[in-house]
Amino acid sequence: MNIGILGTGGVARAIAAKLISLGHTVTIGTRNVEETKSRSKGDAMGNVSFQEWIGKNASVKVATYADAAAYGELLVNATSGMGSLSALTSAGEKNLHGKVLIDISNPLDFSKGFPPSLSVSNTDSIGEQIQRAFPNVKVVKALNTLSNPLMVNPSLVNSGDHTLPICGNDAEAKKKVVMLLASFGWKQENIFDLGDITNARGTEAFLLLWVRMYGVLQTPMFQFKIVK
Amino acid sequence: MNIGILGTGGVARAIAAKLISLGHTVTIGTRNVEETKSRSKGDAMGNVSFQEWIGKNASVKVATYADAAAYGELLVNATSGMGSLSALTSAGEKNLHGKVLIDISNPLDFSKGFPPSLSVSNTDSIGEQIQRAFPNVKVVKALNTLSNPLMVNPSLVNSGDHTLPICGNDAEAKKKVVMLLASFGWKQENIFDLGDITNARGTEAFLLLWVRMYGVLQTPMFQFKIVK
Repeated sequence: MNIGILGTGGVARAIAAKLISLGHTVTIGTRNVEETKSRSKGDAMGNVSFQEWIGKNASVKVATYADAAAYGELLVNATSGMGSLSALTSAGEKNLHGKVLIDISNPLDFSKGFPPSLSVSNTDSIGEQIQRAFPNVKVVKALNTLSNPLMVNPSLVNSGDHTLPICGNDAEAKKKVVMLLASFGWKQENIFDLGDITNARGTEAFLLLWVRMYGVLQTPMFQFKIVK
Repeated sequence: MNIGILGTGGVARAIAAKLISLGHTVTIGTRNVEETKSRSKGDAMGNVSFQEWIGKNASVKVATYADAAAYGELLVNATSGMGSLSALTSAGEKNLHGKVLIDISNPLDFSKGFPPSLSVSNTDSIGEQIQRAFPNVKVVKALNTLSNPLMVNPSLVNSGDHTLPICGNDAEAKKKVVMLLASFGWKQENIFDLGDITNARGTEAFLLLWVRMYGVLQTPMFQFKIVK
């Protein structure tokens, strides 16, 4: 499958590399292609420079948001939540129209340091904002509740036995996403469908707990499992 | 130990009954003692009427917020979050002063139906509001992330193996609360100390996910376990 990923950070890279390993073809979208390709410094999260990463993942194409969106039969929003609407607007409605968009973003606001707050929460969410702005896109919120190594390799903790909440308005779109997640190693019984996209209020707000647990544990290699 | 519990709903009752069974003495605090004692109807949550409950739990005393607070060597806030500051103000600073207060409240706002939103969240929390209003009270946020049967009987799910986040500014107060939780059946290794009271932003916001999972599962008998 041809997949377009918006974003160039740790999440985008983890998803891109996994998709390539599974035989898909991937175009990553960014605001300024030349600027992105010339980035020679790693980031504060411990990610290597984009230059170094793309050197090792040469089959990933780099394009504008619009070209990456046009390329993808399925799209992934891996931009930071506070920049997601702007990135998707740059991508253009005609390139998004009718497609499934896996929204992994979280509206983390680091302007006052760590732990971050959320720029939208409680009675709204970035998932809903995207769905409202692009009513003809099939937004499926998923993978935003855990760190990127675990998104694409759930077996790294507890033999893959932990819970992934998803939500979205379109049942067929969710089925497609669940199939893709299964190819990442997610067991069907661990995927928790919360219902429509308004449930993104729950999964995004969970970040307010996640970032604090991360602060104590000093590692992102943890997850939650719902037990009954 | 003499323990004062503010509130008369399902959480207050579960905690009161458990404490009595463990040999403690308990006074429940309410705004209007006679009105509370005369309540002959169950509530929408499936709780029996207060009259029926107190008939079966006759060793629990019922008093005003102020008298219950004065009575307790240790206090529990089991009022609804939106009414907590008002209840604690009625209890009176001099009756709270210097005491450990276990704050179980959540600022759930049901004014627009289910699922509720939070009346305070993201950059503040009811736990912090209580601590700011009563700086000489040792507020420990605990037990607000799960349903009341599980609070006092964690073994009801997954053999008691699941995670309870707590937070508060006073280390000694947290030790006392952890000892009490151990007497409820909580294993030390499952209690996750997040740090100071600002972390109540995380555990209260978790409710935005919890209520939605509850909506899907149609039972409150579930919990989360952090796995590594």
